[in-house]
Amino acid sequence: MKKIFVIGAGRSATDLIEYLLQHAADNDWEIIVGDFSESLAKEKVADHPRGRAIFFDANDASARKERFQQASLVVSFLPSQMHTMVARDCLTYGCHLVTASYLSPEIAAMDADAKEKGLVFLSEMGADPGIDHMSAMNHIDQIRAAGGELTAFKSFCGALVAPESNDNPFGYKFTWSPMNVITAGQHTARYLENGQYRFIPYHKLFHETETVEIPGCGTFEAYANRDSIRYREKYGIANLPTILRATLRYPGFCETWAALVELGLTDPNYSINDSDQLTWREWVSSYVSIAPGATLEKSIADSLNISIDSPVMERLAWAGLFSDEIIERKNATPAQLLLDLLSRKLAFRTEDTDMLVMMDYFEYMMEGKTYAREAYLVVKGKDPRHTAISLTVGLPAAIAVRLILQGKIQARGVMLPLLPEIYRPVLQELQSLGISFTEREKEISSLVS
Amino acid sequence: MKKIFVIGAGRSATDLIEYLLQHAADNDWEIIVGDFSESLAKEKVADHPRGRAIFFDANDASARKERFQQASLVVSFLPSQMHTMVARDCLTYGCHLVTASYLSPEIAAMDADAKEKGLVFLSEMGADPGIDHMSAMNHIDQIRAAGGELTAFKSFCGALVAPESNDNPFGYKFTWSPMNVITAGQHTARYLENGQYRFIPYHKLFHETETVEIPGCGTFEAYANRDSIRYREKYGIANLPTILRATLRYPGFCETWAALVELGLTDPNYSINDSDQLTWREWVSSYVSIAPGATLEKSIADSLNISIDSPVMERLAWAGLFSDEIIERKNATPAQLLLDLLSRKLAFRTEDTDMLVMMDYFEYMMEGKTYAREAYLVVKGKDPRHTAISLTVGLPAAIAVRLILQGKIQARGVMLPLLPEIYRPVLQELQSLGISFTEREKEISSLVS
Repeated sequence: MKKIFVIGAGRSATDLIEYLLQHAADNDWEIIVGDFSESLAKEKVADHPRGRAIFFDANDASARKERFQQASLVVSFLPSQMHTMVARDCLTYGCHLVTASYLSPEIAAMDADAKEKGLVFLSEMGADPGIDHMSAMNHIDQIRAAGGELTAFKSFCGALVAPESNDNPFGYKFTWSPMNVITAGQHTARYLENGQYRFIPYHKLFHETETVEIPGCGTFEAYANRDSIRYREKYGIANLPTILRATLRYPGFCETWAALVELGLTDPNYSINDSDQLTWREWVSSYVSIAPGATLEKSIADSLNISIDSPVMERLAWAGLFSDEIIERKNATPAQLLLDLLSRKLAFRTEDTDMLVMMDYFEYMMEGKTYAREAYLVVKGKDPRHTAISLTVGLPAAIAVRLILQGKIQARGVMLPLLPEIYRPVLQELQSLGISFTEREKEISSLVS
Repeated sequence: MKKIFVIGAGRSATDLIEYLLQHAADNDWEIIVGDFSESLAKEKVADHPRGRAIFFDANDASARKERFQQASLVVSFLPSQMHTMVARDCLTYGCHLVTASYLSPEIAAMDADAKEKGLVFLSEMGADPGIDHMSAMNHIDQIRAAGGELTAFKSFCGALVAPESNDNPFGYKFTWSPMNVITAGQHTARYLENGQYRFIPYHKLFHETETVEIPGCGTFEAYANRDSIRYREKYGIANLPTILRATLRYPGFCETWAALVELGLTDPNYSINDSDQLTWREWVSSYVSIAPGATLEKSIADSLNISIDSPVMERLAWAGLFSDEIIERKNATPAQLLLDLLSRKLAFRTEDTDMLVMMDYFEYMMEGKTYAREAYLVVKGKDPRHTAISLTVGLPAAIAVRLILQGKIQARGVMLPLLPEIYRPVLQELQSLGISFTEREKEISSLVS
């Protein structure tokens, strides 16, 4: 009997754990789920005969040793900075490793060791990163095999609330890693457009958006992710003149967020000692010059170069930024304060449905003609436990675990899901589980006429 | 005979070393000057009978042991991040320590150990930080002793080129730590104005300037330093409603720098792989959308919301940002590229004179009246070796060394030059060496009428 050790039983691990339990008997697996909250682990395992829920402190080296020694494979859904430690122990105790987090340079450096020990260390095996990579490589390989030459690739993804639950003026609810949303984009975004580098500093990022239409789902705005350029190399298309990876939001969100960034309210890098003695209004007053006789609202609207009764100003007021209520948190960074304020207003509620939207855009030339292909994916949460996040992050990782343990992946070492032997069966099974892309393609007039 | 070990023989150490050598015979000192460039150390020691120049690699623990074991006091003019290592060895081998760098939390934590061993660990003993602290504390203590209540303190300092050498459109030459100038301000600046916090994010910093007049010297613009607020505590004036520490520049510099920041050209956080294959113009084109038919210059002026023939645009062109010349450096960050470009154009030449300008502004109430006091300092370089930087950074440190070794400082442990037993004799001796503040004071109508 092979043991699979799943670390982390949080919201995004529900479908991962259920899939593994469902396949446990047929494959003679035992699924051990460890979490700092034993009750959370128990809830996810739900007394399944092939499952076991345990208390697990990932920082406890002896606990890691005990579990890893017995396991064939470790799936880590811990915060990404803890994966290096986990990966080192996987090398020591000879376990395969699957995570849904971005591959770190530290883990990338373990490639030779993992190969030598015959192990698979698979990172970025979730939704984004994960499904996006697999869909991209699938189309890129197809287009190349057909003799096409790719000229543009754009990939858009958003973890959002579903349209039917989208009922606040921000057009956003926290379905996923709230602090990551608050601090998103705080480095110059880099991409390529017709061979020209495009570098967008943070203070301009949410102003420079692109409109994306997802058929049957709606219109979205996209802002560029941190570094799209390096994906040329990862995807094996070194000279591709246009490449962009971007994040989708409902219309209106980006102009509101641009105002918060312009004011300076998203900074995680300093603390305000006596934040618990300020009102929200006093805090926000620190970010603009208020002329004698002017109101805070007028001063902010002027500094943002917008009208005082514009939708953005209405949204800032709705969020509570101008309220006379006292801030609770002490020694808070601006990012923490903004999160406190918005997490009340933009809470994802039990009755809400979440949604993952993804859109890949490919432009390629073949036999003198230029084609545009779009592949899009819309996944909605099924119920409060089986959210779109849990489905799209957990199922790719779970399917990869099955493929590895069934010996269906030949490659060894540190990898992303860019190999056909990974992305083909995973995309196929995702499709059978209802996570399926729709494609459409048309001939367009060549830009180089 | 006491041995003083000076680490670092660079440009700012000239006057430090000369002062120590001049006082060596009277005090029975030997001055050992260690630098990674032995010839630089030799040049500074200049065969003085009380001096010795040696090759010294500060990262070599055995070399540190050899030198520190024999030394009574270590003066470190190394880059600030190396001081923790030096301070640890000073504890081990029982040497006093003097630096001109900002006190780090790591060294602050050595206070109890330094006290126990009877050692003085004096940081921030240069110009800024250094002279600014001493002048501020001198006035603050005077005003308090006279029964005054301080209501505002602003401190301005700039390391600049002297007006007679100020002959380029930027109004700036690199007299001091060029990369620090390129990346200055990249965190939200924080200060207090009439009891209201003021937080200025980086993208607004160089727009929100204050004009400062230095009598007999000229008009300057000031932008706020990173964190002024914490100096309330350091200076023992916990409830002071207005406190600002700021950096001085010649007029025009800040609006030009604001444009570079707005474009995104000062970022040190990412590298451009093939920067050596781009022209300056191509690089800069990455930071704006260029509409079909528009020039780069027009697009930049539009994105900055300024006229294409404005002084700022002329300065950017003069700097070479729009040139078709190929960039030389490979894998460069934007900050490195900007430094490469500007260090040619804004070079401080042998025939140039540098200047340190400082202005302290105090407002206080006494017996129902409000007074404004200004204390200002203008120091010019004497010759290419004895620059204003060398004089104002090196002499305070040198005088402190003398006071410590002569037993004239009673305090022990980690400290800044905020104690009367330090700042009084140091300011007095600086005055005798020509580094002297001019003061003026007047009664002003009270703001609280």
